[in-house]
Amino acid sequence: MLDPKRTIAELKELRALTADEHGAQRVAWTDTWLRAREWFAQKLSSLPVEHHLDAAGNRWVTLPGDSEKALVLGSHLDSVPNGGWLDGALGVMAGLEVMRRFAEQYGGRPPVTIRLVDFADEEGARFGRSLLGSSAVAGTDSIAADRVRKDKDGILLENALRRCGVEIDRFPEAQQERRNMAAYLELHIEQGPVLESLDLPLGVVLGTKGVERHAITFHGQEAHSGSTPMHQRHDALAAAAKLALEIRNIAGAHPDAVCTIGSVKTFPGIVTAVVGRCETTLDQRDLSAEVLARMWCEAKLAAERFAAEEKCSVEWSRIWSIEPLPFHPELVELCAKAVSETCGTAHRLPSGPLHDAAEIVRGGIPVVMMFVQSLRGISHNKIEDTREDHLELAVAALDRLADSTVEWILRNSQ
Amino acid sequence: MLDPKRTIAELKELRALTADEHGAQRVAWTDTWLRAREWFAQKLSSLPVEHHLDAAGNRWVTLPGDSEKALVLGSHLDSVPNGGWLDGALGVMAGLEVMRRFAEQYGGRPPVTIRLVDFADEEGARFGRSLLGSSAVAGTDSIAADRVRKDKDGILLENALRRCGVEIDRFPEAQQERRNMAAYLELHIEQGPVLESLDLPLGVVLGTKGVERHAITFHGQEAHSGSTPMHQRHDALAAAAKLALEIRNIAGAHPDAVCTIGSVKTFPGIVTAVVGRCETTLDQRDLSAEVLARMWCEAKLAAERFAAEEKCSVEWSRIWSIEPLPFHPELVELCAKAVSETCGTAHRLPSGPLHDAAEIVRGGIPVVMMFVQSLRGISHNKIEDTREDHLELAVAALDRLADSTVEWILRNSQ
Repeated sequence: MLDPKRTIAELKELRALTADEHGAQRVAWTDTWLRAREWFAQKLSSLPVEHHLDAAGNRWVTLPGDSEKALVLGSHLDSVPNGGWLDGALGVMAGLEVMRRFAEQYGGRPPVTIRLVDFADEEGARFGRSLLGSSAVAGTDSIAADRVRKDKDGILLENALRRCGVEIDRFPEAQQERRNMAAYLELHIEQGPVLESLDLPLGVVLGTKGVERHAITFHGQEAHSGSTPMHQRHDALAAAAKLALEIRNIAGAHPDAVCTIGSVKTFPGIVTAVVGRCETTLDQRDLSAEVLARMWCEAKLAAERFAAEEKCSVEWSRIWSIEPLPFHPELVELCAKAVSETCGTAHRLPSGPLHDAAEIVRGGIPVVMMFVQSLRGISHNKIEDTREDHLELAVAALDRLADSTVEWILRNSQ
Repeated sequence: MLDPKRTIAELKELRALTADEHGAQRVAWTDTWLRAREWFAQKLSSLPVEHHLDAAGNRWVTLPGDSEKALVLGSHLDSVPNGGWLDGALGVMAGLEVMRRFAEQYGGRPPVTIRLVDFADEEGARFGRSLLGSSAVAGTDSIAADRVRKDKDGILLENALRRCGVEIDRFPEAQQERRNMAAYLELHIEQGPVLESLDLPLGVVLGTKGVERHAITFHGQEAHSGSTPMHQRHDALAAAAKLALEIRNIAGAHPDAVCTIGSVKTFPGIVTAVVGRCETTLDQRDLSAEVLARMWCEAKLAAERFAAEEKCSVEWSRIWSIEPLPFHPELVELCAKAVSETCGTAHRLPSGPLHDAAEIVRGGIPVVMMFVQSLRGISHNKIEDTREDHLELAVAALDRLADSTVEWILRNSQ
């Protein structure tokens, strides 16, 4: 029988094992992370399952079923430094509980194969490369660029992986794990304030938003703050300030879109000088590729306009981008039904943060995610938390969704 | 006979002696500065003058006259690192040329005493304390706070001064130099673009603007840029951006006022986070104390309003302030006459930057300054420059002003 309270108890056990007074320390490819994974492997000993690490260091647990078609549940045990107790770990431990229920209910042989995956290095906290393990599974890895990444101590990514028994050149072999993967489900904390503001425990995730991330630099003219009349200035900060306000209008035209200027740097950056150069970063996200493209275009035009108004120039350079990755429409409906049956209301929302689920979409697998409320919307912080009754509802809803997804897989196999 | 070309030649001589490929290096209390001062002392050998260093390291050159009442000309030989060839040095060398003319014209005994001063450490480039020497003369020094200042190598100000023969505890003795000081005249480069934009070589300075300098910090809520809807943000950058634009309206209501946000720092300052804290600096200047007070009040109210609009809070802390220091109205008229007779038009303007002249005003002495055009308004930079014909006009106009000021002193002494 499903025991959501056990999931909470196990998450607390994991916290006691891998957190210090600053929060979770399960950074991928570190000893604390290895300890967490060893602890997890021990949890599997009483189950009729096979488990192994794939070529990218992802752990796969398999409960064979009558059909080779597999329902996969998963998330990641790794955390950021000083992280929370639920980010990632909730999805893995809730998946384990659902797998236990399948094993028990079907006498060890469910109608389809049930698999559980703990992806390696979702956070990218140490080497700045997130979704590392899941991208290997999806076949969207970037080995040449990633092998030479260094951590803050100068250790190469490829050497850190080798220490954990993973050879980066063998990453493509991890794609084998996609064979027979019929659906992927992931439960995760929201990491935002939407469900809390709606007073809902659970949400149905429509997909992960596409991201356009750019560095924007305004060039004006450094000048003495005392001797330069206002109308003779070329104030790079003024142009940047106009953009910082205008991006709110640009995002505001679309219900779920967000635009953020997260960093502003001023040069020379002293109290007695008009800003000659202002470096900013822009992050834009939406679930619609068309909206994303329009917002980027609008920001570019606005920046040009503000630069001209302030007698400055502006240059853009793309930091990173990813396309929107909508989840499978039929699985979204199944998730909505499971959430609705569990807590009455199925609110649908996109995910701003990326997740391993996004890479699995790119790998061509039907995917859906479920969110559980985050208190104060805070994550990547030791104060990250979720009410325990919400956690219990989340495990129960994931279990419901797993059942209906098994039926969906069987229907599709006929 | 006055020889303005000699002044230019001497300034070039000084440049050759004390500049490198990055500009002037006459930073106060350094060997290069001492070399500049030694060079200057040698220039005095053929004149019938007494000269000495006062207790604060200012050099005073005295050409005794029939009256003990003294006309003082002056400026400073010290520069910022990588500075220009004219900032400060022009006023000292032009003053020397005028002194030579007085000595020659009156056979060594002019009607009033003529003095020339090279103030020590106007720039404050090494220890962050500008107007050091002139404040000692004015009696507005701040010995306790200044003695413990350190340069970037950790050397104490009081030790750097001692190495040059100056004991900071004896600073108050420098006030003796104010005895019989009837007027102080200073020629300086504008360091701004106003005269160039008016196509005028010279300007009459009305006084130095008062300055209000504040650190303003907006506190919002750091949040994930992907998962936090626009309307649920507490974006500290947005509040700061509004203020950066509003200060232009605040300054714009007054013809000569300036307001500048020169530094913006964002925290955590990463591309994926809404800005939780934004630290800015505000510098406001005007020649009217009333306008300055009103602008500060308006900025404070605006910051409060923007903080509230963005669901943030704001805190202010004063970095520094100084009151406006208007020059002597009769000397301003004499300066206008001299400028007008030299180049046809006498444009009056306040000085945004501070000068030693401001401290001498605080010391209760009648003061006026004259500006000569700065090409592109640029100073504190090796490309600082002024047309040579403008430099010649400036020396000639200062000489005219010195003559009329001597008459004014004699009239006042009767």
